[in-house]
Amino acid sequence: MPEPKVVTACVLLIGDEILSGRTQDANLAFLAQALGQAGIRVVEARVIPDREDAIVRAVNACRSQVDYVFTTGGIGPTHDDITAAAIARAFGLPLHRHAEAMRRLQRQYDPADLNPARLRMADMPLGAELIDNPVSQAPGFRIGNVFVLPGVPRILQAMVGGLLARLEGGRPLLTRTVAAFATEGSIAEALATVQAHHPEVSIGSYPFVRDNRLGTALVARSTDPLRLDAAVTDIAIIVRAIGVEPVVEP
Amino acid sequence: MPEPKVVTACVLLIGDEILSGRTQDANLAFLAQALGQAGIRVVEARVIPDREDAIVRAVNACRSQVDYVFTTGGIGPTHDDITAAAIARAFGLPLHRHAEAMRRLQRQYDPADLNPARLRMADMPLGAELIDNPVSQAPGFRIGNVFVLPGVPRILQAMVGGLLARLEGGRPLLTRTVAAFATEGSIAEALATVQAHHPEVSIGSYPFVRDNRLGTALVARSTDPLRLDAAVTDIAIIVRAIGVEPVVEP
Repeated sequence: MPEPKVVTACVLLIGDEILSGRTQDANLAFLAQALGQAGIRVVEARVIPDREDAIVRAVNACRSQVDYVFTTGGIGPTHDDITAAAIARAFGLPLHRHAEAMRRLQRQYDPADLNPARLRMADMPLGAELIDNPVSQAPGFRIGNVFVLPGVPRILQAMVGGLLARLEGGRPLLTRTVAAFATEGSIAEALATVQAHHPEVSIGSYPFVRDNRLGTALVARSTDPLRLDAAVTDIAIIVRAIGVEPVVEP
Repeated sequence: MPEPKVVTACVLLIGDEILSGRTQDANLAFLAQALGQAGIRVVEARVIPDREDAIVRAVNACRSQVDYVFTTGGIGPTHDDITAAAIARAFGLPLHRHAEAMRRLQRQYDPADLNPARLRMADMPLGAELIDNPVSQAPGFRIGNVFVLPGVPRILQAMVGGLLARLEGGRPLLTRTVAAFATEGSIAEALATVQAHHPEVSIGSYPFVRDNRLGTALVARSTDPLRLDAAVTDIAIIVRAIGVEPVVEP
């Protein structure tokens, strides 16, 4: 049986406000989970400033390496919204006012309010396909394998819902967690042995504090449910072997 | 008067758990704010998986481009903690058990508990300098312009406090915000004019919802307090010109 294809993605978070620490990004975690469930694995993310050369460089570095690139931010009406122009330059395409995007803006705004700044939200690389925005009409777009989304989490989340059905994913990555009130160091050697016995399962170890007690979450990930179960069983066994009751999360 | 030097940094967040969406990163926002106050500007961040080749590639891509690189994650005792080995490979240096790091682990653990897995936390590239860990002893390290920190936010934050005094920063980037209950599109054109008049000030526009009302935060950033004040005054004037009372945050 051939190995199922792993479908990969890179997420580019565009915005000075994330790099300055003013805004806590929430889009990466959302996209990673939503894409993961659709069988698309986020293998890298970058946070880049509102600078055209930085966006061009990151888009071109990533789009040849992965199946899909998702960008967030920089598609509003203000002068610092330069994502569309930067993506056009990255693809060597002219920036062009998209007729259907303009019609949607015309439906959303009174003619007096549809000023040149708002009309810029219809400017996209020539040949771009719209991504529907059920919240505020101003659409995102796809060009090549790059999907351009807004930065406002509520709007991004609404747009991704409609988008996922159109993307081809691989087998979703399944995750199961064994929690143990044990320190990482007390279980690390046995865990390395379990990892070596289950090379098709990726096992991660993450310390936590709960009810003032130190614990470790042992997280197994695989596209194969049977191999995942086998690794989870072995993890539970090594936890019990050091005298701790494992909690296998469903 | 010569322009003050801008001191730049790149942050590398290492960990499959961030790329899968399991863990919401909090370290970038903390580092960006702490470094910003010390006059060090984060100009890029990347989230990369627990894979040696990915870490080597990202470290070598970033360390030649910026003054400082900060990594978070992957320096614990388990098999998925591979940051130290990857950094050694990125620098072409042997991985080496650091004598003083080992002494600190010996002070922290009973001899019976200081197993091979925990001793791995003393393995660093040859020539690394320790970064003190006031919480759990296991130190981070510096090699060249790369600073290797843990992923657990509480420990990272304690370590950064002691570290900042040793770093040379530039002039801190100052930030002031004008909040307005106005949509971005209603103010975008006038704001672009203000930005054009104040090229040394970077002005960003960020929509928000407060008390069920749409608003826009207009954020001005500069290393020069006088230029910053001048831009903030102009921003307040254009907000008032559309009949909205600006709230200038202190």
